[in-house]
Amino acid sequence: MPVILDAADSPSLEQLLQAIPESQALVTTWQVGAQHAATHPIQGIGPLGSASVHEISFIVTPKYQSELENTLACAVIMTPELARANEAICQAKGFGQIICSQPYLFYALVARWFDQARQPSRMGGIHPTAIIDASAVISPSAIIEPYVIIGARTCINEGVQIRAHTVLGSDCNIGRDTVLNPGVRCYDRVFIGERGLIHCGVVLGADGFGFAPNPAAGKGAWGKIAQLGGVRIGHDVEIGANTTIDRGALEDTVIGNGVKIDNQIMIAHNCQIGDHTAMAACVGIAGSTKIGARCTIGGASMLSGHLTIGDDVHISGGTAITTDIDKPGRYTGVLPAAPHANWQRNAAVIGQLSDLRKRLRKLERN
Amino acid sequence: MPVILDAADSPSLEQLLQAIPESQALVTTWQVGAQHAATHPIQGIGPLGSASVHEISFIVTPKYQSELENTLACAVIMTPELARANEAICQAKGFGQIICSQPYLFYALVARWFDQARQPSRMGGIHPTAIIDASAVISPSAIIEPYVIIGARTCINEGVQIRAHTVLGSDCNIGRDTVLNPGVRCYDRVFIGERGLIHCGVVLGADGFGFAPNPAAGKGAWGKIAQLGGVRIGHDVEIGANTTIDRGALEDTVIGNGVKIDNQIMIAHNCQIGDHTAMAACVGIAGSTKIGARCTIGGASMLSGHLTIGDDVHISGGTAITTDIDKPGRYTGVLPAAPHANWQRNAAVIGQLSDLRKRLRKLERN
Amino acid sequence: MPVILDAADSPSLEQLLQAIPESQALVTTWQVGAQHAATHPIQGIGPLGSASVHEISFIVTPKYQSELENTLACAVIMTPELARANEAICQAKGFGQIICSQPYLFYALVARWFDQARQPSRMGGIHPTAIIDASAVISPSAIIEPYVIIGARTCINEGVQIRAHTVLGSDCNIGRDTVLNPGVRCYDRVFIGERGLIHCGVVLGADGFGFAPNPAAGKGAWGKIAQLGGVRIGHDVEIGANTTIDRGALEDTVIGNGVKIDNQIMIAHNCQIGDHTAMAACVGIAGSTKIGARCTIGGASMLSGHLTIGDDVHISGGTAITTDIDKPGRYTGVLPAAPHANWQRNAAVIGQLSDLRKRLRKLERN
Repeated sequence: MPVILDAADSPSLEQLLQAIPESQALVTTWQVGAQHAATHPIQGIGPLGSASVHEISFIVTPKYQSELENTLACAVIMTPELARANEAICQAKGFGQIICSQPYLFYALVARWFDQARQPSRMGGIHPTAIIDASAVISPSAIIEPYVIIGARTCINEGVQIRAHTVLGSDCNIGRDTVLNPGVRCYDRVFIGERGLIHCGVVLGADGFGFAPNPAAGKGAWGKIAQLGGVRIGHDVEIGANTTIDRGALEDTVIGNGVKIDNQIMIAHNCQIGDHTAMAACVGIAGSTKIGARCTIGGASMLSGHLTIGDDVHISGGTAITTDIDKPGRYTGVLPAAPHANWQRNAAVIGQLSDLRKRLRKLERN
Repeated sequence: MPVILDAADSPSLEQLLQAIPESQALVTTWQVGAQHAATHPIQGIGPLGSASVHEISFIVTPKYQSELENTLACAVIMTPELARANEAICQAKGFGQIICSQPYLFYALVARWFDQARQPSRMGGIHPTAIIDASAVISPSAIIEPYVIIGARTCINEGVQIRAHTVLGSDCNIGRDTVLNPGVRCYDRVFIGERGLIHCGVVLGADGFGFAPNPAAGKGAWGKIAQLGGVRIGHDVEIGANTTIDRGALEDTVIGNGVKIDNQIMIAHNCQIGDHTAMAACVGIAGSTKIGARCTIGGASMLSGHLTIGDDVHISGGTAITTDIDKPGRYTGVLPAAPHANWQRNAAVIGQLSDLRKRLRKLERN
Repeated sequence: MPVILDAADSPSLEQLLQAIPESQALVTTWQVGAQHAATHPIQGIGPLGSASVHEISFIVTPKYQSELENTLACAVIMTPELARANEAICQAKGFGQIICSQPYLFYALVARWFDQARQPSRMGGIHPTAIIDASAVISPSAIIEPYVIIGARTCINEGVQIRAHTVLGSDCNIGRDTVLNPGVRCYDRVFIGERGLIHCGVVLGADGFGFAPNPAAGKGAWGKIAQLGGVRIGHDVEIGANTTIDRGALEDTVIGNGVKIDNQIMIAHNCQIGDHTAMAACVGIAGSTKIGARCTIGGASMLSGHLTIGDDVHISGGTAITTDIDKPGRYTGVLPAAPHANWQRNAAVIGQLSDLRKRLRKLERN
């Protein structure tokens, strides 16, 4: 699992390696499995433990040694070291071998090849049910699927795919080869760079959460502060399903190049995210916080507003960041879970910690 | 509140009990209220405190005794014990009684009856605005609402309802009697079992968050790992609004039978969720984590990736789980909230705990 | 940044002040910048640091003094105190001044003016692709955009905008001048007050998460409890992108007047939220919890079910509330983040706190 292609559409090992240009640089040697004809079709790629005889697999660490010994895969990507250490097994099992120093990277390339090979050729052009403002500019090479709506002066560049039901406001710009999956919503003035991938349910450019007390309208009432900025997203950005990025209050909310954003993330107005920063699902970033380049933010973390986080900062999952961080490194703040009764016993003491410290000091003084 | 049906469409108490087949097994005795005609129509079901004379109500524990004494409901579901203890009140107030040992279960059955009684009969067949690939297979008993899109080779089985604006990719399968509410998005190769209920805004099968460092593309750059697996969901699964479940990297993400998933939950690629596990809103589960059967996961909890959680594990709301759990039981990890000043005083000590322990040890040694 | 209007459509400072009725009450004095003609058009509003010569700006605290000294803005809103303190600078730089005691409020009014000035005049009436039940009642002044679906007996009042792709169930009511952005989903019986603003991807009225153990259907199986209530939302409520509010089990889930709800928030069934309460993104509120008026709830906080939180309670971001709060004030419960090694050292002690306290007591007794 998973077989991706029909046998008739599948390459032999030689054809597969030829189809991946990076093979030349990455693969030292390769050979067809002793038990397989040179024309044996490679129909997919799977983990060692569940790959069928129609699939290629890979091994990155000796940890999966026993799965190698039992694999059905017709060929295995591995390092020279693992190949040497397993010469007898390879011989006995008769699977093919692709020897390269970076088997995980090569797995990614093979997976990408299969993913692209199975992509249906999407119908080009503009579906007749799409409703496009007369002032919008649509590249002839773009694909606009059914029920899409595109606002005034929005520009859709070469090779862009706007998939079904996506709605774009006015004055947006979608860079070449970017894909917006079904049901993406962009308000006005959202700019997305090239080669982006935006998943279903993403909302870009909703109003930032800006209110000022407005006592004239009642005790405790709030007055809305219009959100005049936009959202500006760099090149090579992926944004996961149902994530939301709000427009800026005055200036744009800015997402750098190469940023990877998982599902269900919230990025508030005026945030700035540096290049190649990656954040796992369910992260929330409050307004006006600036995050540096090459940071990683673990899932379900949250960052307060108006913070500055430097480059190369790594935040563990589930951590709340409430102060600036200027030094690279890993930061954590998670309460360890425990059996409930243990937790109850210890949690009760947390509210007395300051008192405990005082009492300890007193003992020390005596 | 709430009255559900018009008086003309509403059953008498006798008719209601006859309409619910489980009455025979569950209800020991029942009687119409002394103050009501036997034909008094039951128009809905409400809590004791707010039910009108047109509604039936229920009492599960003596805790709501005072509400029973003041209820307007025309009939009350109760245990034999509560009936005995309240004989005088029942007589005085003159409401009807349905005596059964499981009043909460019987409430659920009555509520279900009213819910179904008020369901509009939806227009059958395929709405002309639906766009369905010629190779898709649609059961004649399925309902396909407006603006639905269904991809190649996708199979829609008997009694399925695909409500408005839902988009299904290619090679999906939706099991009989499953309902997809408006605006659900399924990518390719999403399989949903029978009798499922998927709420608005759910996204199934978006790419898992898989990247590998790709320094060739720039310092800190990420290379995407194609996500080749699918999503496989069992029978009798409910998935709440705006929840997202990603496709697997190589194998499928798997949700067992009878699993109940609340709103705004994120289940990452390669996760496996055991049968009848229930999770409350805002839970996040990172990639490749396996959760056993019959677990409950409290709201806003998060689980790290690559964990194994056994059967019958119960995680309190707001808890971060970062290690395997193999023993059934309840696990908790929540920092108790406190008035801000108290919290400040005590939180400052958390960063000194290790030091405190050292100092305590030193005192003990002296 | 941002310039909002073309020069030809932009007001002079005098025209801008005249266009904002509140100027009369709020602005003490004003003058055009010495360097600018009285007809110099104000094309937008920006922060001091980045405003161009075509924009107005504002200063609220002396903290931004240096930005005032370097601003390019053609006019600045400021307090009389700041104006006096900066007389020389104002003279030297030659920008215009608007003197008023509440510069932030006046900024909000100017921003609102620009926001409205740039709104396109939306096409009125009902788009031919909208599918509206014959029994629905649509005000002639309402705007119904493409691909909208409106169910039986739903009522759309004066000035309402139902933007593209939004789906409304049966028996809903949308109060006058409320705007539903693209892709909002309302199930049956959702009531929204006047002047509301509902952002993209919001789901109102999905089933509450109600199940009862149903062992008859298998070990650990759950039986669904039908959710019969609706959702009732007051006037002047804003709801952020991808937020979900579930319908009540028997009675309605209720959101008060003037409540402000950010993105990705989850409000479970039967909750009641008091007037003018505001909650930042990613908050989760479990079922049947009642929150008072004028509360603020910080981002990523979570509240357990069946709680009662009084008026004027302020909950810090990232805090878990698991007990009732009846006293106004600020409440916090966040584990401070730290460099990972520090955290590891200290977190290990949390599981021993009760033991530490015991040992401390023992020492104290000796």
